[in-house]
Formats: sequence, C-alpha cells, structure tokens
Amino acid sequence: MERSRETLRRPRLLVDEERARGNIQRMVDKARASGAALRPHFKTHQSREIGRWFRDAGVREVTVSSVDQALYFAADGWDDITIAIPVCPGDITRIDGLADTVRLGLLVDAPETVDLLGRELDALARVWIKVDVGYGRVGVRWDDPARVLDIARRIDRADGLEPAGLLTHAGHSYHSAGPAEIAEIHRQTVARMTGVADALDGAGLGRPALSVGDTPCCSVAPDFCGLDEIRPGNFVFYDAQQLALGACAEQDIALGLECPVIGVYPERREAVVLGGAVHLSKDRFSLPDGGEAFGWVVRRCDRSFGRVDRRVYVRGVSQEHGMIAIGDPDLLAELRPGDALTVLPAHSCLAANLHPAYATTNGRSILRLGAGETG
Amino acid sequence: MERSRETLRRPRLLVDEERARGNIQRMVDKARASGAALRPHFKTHQSREIGRWFRDAGVREVTVSSVDQALYFAADGWDDITIAIPVCPGDITRIDGLADTVRLGLLVDAPETVDLLGRELDALARVWIKVDVGYGRVGVRWDDPARVLDIARRIDRADGLEPAGLLTHAGHSYHSAGPAEIAEIHRQTVARMTGVADALDGAGLGRPALSVGDTPCCSVAPDFCGLDEIRPGNFVFYDAQQLALGACAEQDIALGLECPVIGVYPERREAVVLGGAVHLSKDRFSLPDGGEAFGWVVRRCDRSFGRVDRRVYVRGVSQEHGMIAIGDPDLLAELRPGDALTVLPAHSCLAANLHPAYATTNGRSILRLGAGETG
Repeated sequence: MERSRETLRRPRLLVDEERARGNIQRMVDKARASGAALRPHFKTHQSREIGRWFRDAGVREVTVSSVDQALYFAADGWDDITIAIPVCPGDITRIDGLADTVRLGLLVDAPETVDLLGRELDALARVWIKVDVGYGRVGVRWDDPARVLDIARRIDRADGLEPAGLLTHAGHSYHSAGPAEIAEIHRQTVARMTGVADALDGAGLGRPALSVGDTPCCSVAPDFCGLDEIRPGNFVFYDAQQLALGACAEQDIALGLECPVIGVYPERREAVVLGGAVHLSKDRFSLPDGGEAFGWVVRRCDRSFGRVDRRVYVRGVSQEHGMIAIGDPDLLAELRPGDALTVLPAHSCLAANLHPAYATTNGRSILRLGAGETG
Repeated sequence: MERSRETLRRPRLLVDEERARGNIQRMVDKARASGAALRPHFKTHQSREIGRWFRDAGVREVTVSSVDQALYFAADGWDDITIAIPVCPGDITRIDGLADTVRLGLLVDAPETVDLLGRELDALARVWIKVDVGYGRVGVRWDDPARVLDIARRIDRADGLEPAGLLTHAGHSYHSAGPAEIAEIHRQTVARMTGVADALDGAGLGRPALSVGDTPCCSVAPDFCGLDEIRPGNFVFYDAQQLALGACAEQDIALGLECPVIGVYPERREAVVLGGAVHLSKDRFSLPDGGEAFGWVVRRCDRSFGRVDRRVYVRGVSQEHGMIAIGDPDLLAELRPGDALTVLPAHSCLAANLHPAYATTNGRSILRLGAGETG
C-alpha cells in the first residue's frame, strides 16, 4: 500500500474522473435511448469543472437545490436551470434576478406560492408542480388531483409564469430492499404521475411534461418510457448506499475520501483515521450481514480505488475520528500511523458537501462551491 | 410567532449569547471549586469571538482538534493550546511551527509516534499520553500499564518533549441512559486514570497530571476531585442530545438553527423547512417516547428560544429538507411558507461546523473558522 507519511495531513476527497465520466455517459445514453431529457442534479458535485464533464457528454440542462448553486453554475455558462426545491418566499428577489439571465425552472406545491410568484416576479419563470408520489416529503399528493388542478389553473392565469409540467422525486427508493423493489417504485411512480397528467389533460389544461429523478430508479429502471425528463444526481459518483441498494456496481463508485491513519489497535482489530462526521457526514448504509457502517475502506491502486473487502469498513464516526473495523489480518499487520486509507462514503453527496475541493486520482485539483469557489 | 417573509432565505445559526456566557461561567466556577483547570474544547464553536467570551470568564488554556483550529486561535492571542487528537505524522512540519509560537500540548498513544516527535520536532512540545478508559476509540487501554510505561519512558528520554500527563475522553458517556449512569462513568474514569497514574508513580516516573473531558461527565459530576484539568467543549451551547442525557436543562441550550418553512402539510401534520443534513448534520437523539429525531423545533421569543413542545421535532432530514412533525394543531394551522422555525439541533458541534457564521439572538453577526475566517 502507498506510504504517504509527511504528505497527507488531513482527509481529502478523491475523484476517479474516468469512472465519473463513464457514469455520466451511461446515463446520457440511457436517457437518449428512451427519448427523455437528462437534466442532472448538480447538488452532488457542486463543481464547475465536474459540470463541464457533463457538458462534454452533451448535457445542456441542469438541476440544482439552491439559488446559490444556480448562480454558481450560471456563471459558468449554464443557462437552463431548475431549482428543485419548493420556492422559499424569502428568496424571491434573487430568484427574479436569476430568471432574468437564465431559463429558470421553479417548484411549487402550494397555491399561495404561485400567487406570490405571479405578483412578485418581473422576469419569466417556468413553474413545475411538485407531486408527492409516496415519499412523503414535499409535493401535492398524487391522489389529490383537485389541488394539482387548482395550482395548474393559477399558473395558467398568472402573468410571467410558464407551466413546465409535473415533477417528482421518488426518494423512498433509497429505503428499498433492492433492485426489484426499486423497479417497482419506478413503475408505480410513472403510473401515478401519468394519472395526475391525465387529470390535467382531462380538465383541458393540456398534457403536462413529466420529470422524475432519483439515482436508484434512474439506474435500475430498464427505460424511461412515458417520461419527458430525468434528474438523477448521485449517479456521477455513486457510493456505498447505492452499492448496497444494487443501483451500481462497485467499479462505478467514483468518490473516495483519503484519510491519514492516526492509530492502530490490533487487540480490537481496528484502526482510527482522521476522517469523522465533519469529513464523511453521519450517513450510513446497511452491511451485507445486516449491521450498519459509514463507508467501505479500501486501498488506492493504479489511479483508482482498490476492491471492497467486506471485512474492512468504517464502523463508527465521532466529530473528527473514523473507527475502522479491519477483519483483514494482513492489512492490520502492516498499517502504521501516517499511512493512508480511502473511505468510499455511505453517501457521496453529503461527504462531498463537507470539502472545498477534490483531487482527482490522477493528481489534479478541482474546486467546489464553498471555500474554493463562490456563487 | 415571528413572520420573516422576504427576509430569511436560508438557514442561519443563532446563538443566545447570554445562555452561552452563563454555561461558560458555571463550568468555570465548578472547575475552580474543585481546583481543576478548565481547558475548554473550542472545536464546538470554532469562533474567535466566542473564544473571547471564555477569556472574559478567565479562561487562558484551550483545547482544539486540528492544527488548523490551533493556528486560527493562536492568531487571536491564545498561547496555551492542546491539540486533542493523536498526532498525525503528516502534520509534523506545521506542528513544529506552532510549537515555536505557543505552549503546545500533543497527544500520543503509540511508542513510534513519540520517537517520531523526538526525532523531527525542533521546538519544545508537551506530550500527553492518551488513555482509553473504556470508550474504545483511541488511546492506550487503562488496563495495559506496561504500554503506558513504555511510552512515558520514551517521552522522558526524547529531546524537546515535556511529559504533560495522562489524558482521556470518556465518550461512552454519550451513550448512557442518564445522569446516574454518567456519574458512574465519571467515577470509573477517575478510578481508572488514577490506577494508571499509580503505575507511573510506582515506576519512578513521577505523579502525572490527569486531564479528562466530555460534556456529559463534566456537567453531571458533582466535582472534579482527583483531576488536574477538564476539557469539555459542547457545554457552551449544549443541544438536544445533552438534554436527552440529562446533562443540561432546556434553558441552557444556546444554539438554534433558524430555518425558512417551504411547505406545510396539514393532512400528515407536518411542515418542511429548508434545513437538512447539510445544515444540521444527520446526528440524532432519543425522543422521550423512544423514537429518534434530529432536533427539537421551537419558535423564537424575546431574544431567545421558546419552550420545547414534545410534539414538535425534526423527524427526518434529506440533503436540504427538514421534515417537521407538528403535533400542535395551533402551530400547524398558522404556519405558512416563508415563516421561520428554529431547530435546536441534536448535536450542536456538528451543526455549527456546517455554517460559516452565527447570528446572535440579539442581532449581531459572528464569524467562524471556515468561509468566514481562516487559520
């Protein structure tokens, strides 16, 4: 294994660019085969440079989760952006400014928000009606078409608002048992969205576009028939949660956190790395044996990440410490403080969000929104 | 309740300065009554201004968890700093520079790290032997005095290393059932540390100073007899975890996250705020009924936080969304998108770490290490 004494002094995010570009290209191809637009969610990477990898693959439309992210990517030439979180009334002024410069998509799930937008926006904005297909977070429930109709009619009546269609996030796919259940959630999502679309169409409001987006469904579904747009985000990196769900292969995982070892404890078959909740987040995934962990732990190899060994994982994190269970006696015997281990995080979106920059596994540095680059 | 439409557009950290200063003063008084030094852990707030509140109360020695934090506080005049995480070999150069300018304390739990420090440090450093009293994270186990003796002798022999004593963190107090169990962990911690100290003393190495530090034990223990130093950190803010443990009163909680409401869902008695895992962390605490939550949710009132209502809490978080269970029908009826709700987070250290600045409940802005201020 590599020795990085005197070099690695804090955790650093590593991206395998080849794997990430491969993940992007596969989703581009899959969307194209179904005739659906791919509008990837950029909250996962929040990096202009990684955004350009999508542009290289022909992507022209993006999704973000905040006005800050929208401003950040707009400054790099992205001019068709959906902010995929219900409009925050306190952000109307900045939204208006943004709608003046890009083709902006907004989400609403409440009639009063439509009225607010109609009243206060000067610039033109496209408005999606957020539908809840069973996740239970935000959105109008799929089985409440009367409320969807009310919102749709207000959008039609409002000055400066263009109806964009119906949009959902089937986030319950993250809590599923595996690919079969994910595929069933996707089938149900398409059916429920189609039902709401039928209601709008039947009421004379026209056939709305349908947008869905979550990495498990978009990875597992055989195709995107019946949909106009998909918005997955996590798939650019994938992670241990997606691997546990069966939404990716191990060789698709493109993000790791390289951490210096600060303690080795053979008597309990563990090591401790500088790499805790403030570097990885406290998100978890299910181990094959039913326990929970915060990441798989691998060695680096040949400009990428080595193979997962089911005996080696982050069993616990405190603020700065990561406790690594090491069931591999050979690895345990050779580890010393100052060595580096790489964690494949439970949740790459949350881990990436904790760092100002990435390094690629072939040695380049890439900035992120935050300390590195600002919106 | 306050209406902050058009003003609050993203979550912001709120500090009740009066409560925080009260928490500081109580711990100062308690340490003084036992003749123990208080060397508070500044990883919780990571703010020069909040550090000065401790200085106002007579504190002159501090604990941090990284070289970055040490540099940040050294630049504000703190000149007696312990970095309370085992030395990372890759950080030796920066540690040496720091030891040149402040009275620096370091932690070791491995003989080879002592040898490394002896070989590579030019400046003088104080070296604590980290002892594991049962938490199982880092440190030499309390029941392995032979290893402690080996390390102590190497410190004695090394050039430029000054023995500081024995240091522990009884982090298992965070997993206890309540004050009685916390008090028992504290009693056991003091006994185990004293046993190791006896072994060093009996071997002719002199009586070592004893340093312990975790907020539950330091809050619950009746006194600090037998100890030379305490290093709690979280107590400056406390949080929902500490409240659940019985380590603080509700009126001691000094940190909240004010979040804009972005959706109200009366049919499931919930609201959703802009305030998710990237604003609060995914740390949790136990609800009185046995469930788990990510924070209590209160209204603001009179320059502070309103009372906790056991029916109103963050039941779930995704990347940017916080799902609030609202069992109070009056609150549910009056909430609208754009209103503000304040979350008392499960874990204030992790929540604070996600933001570049604080606002005080009486309207001032305070920067933090990170985007706001750098080390």
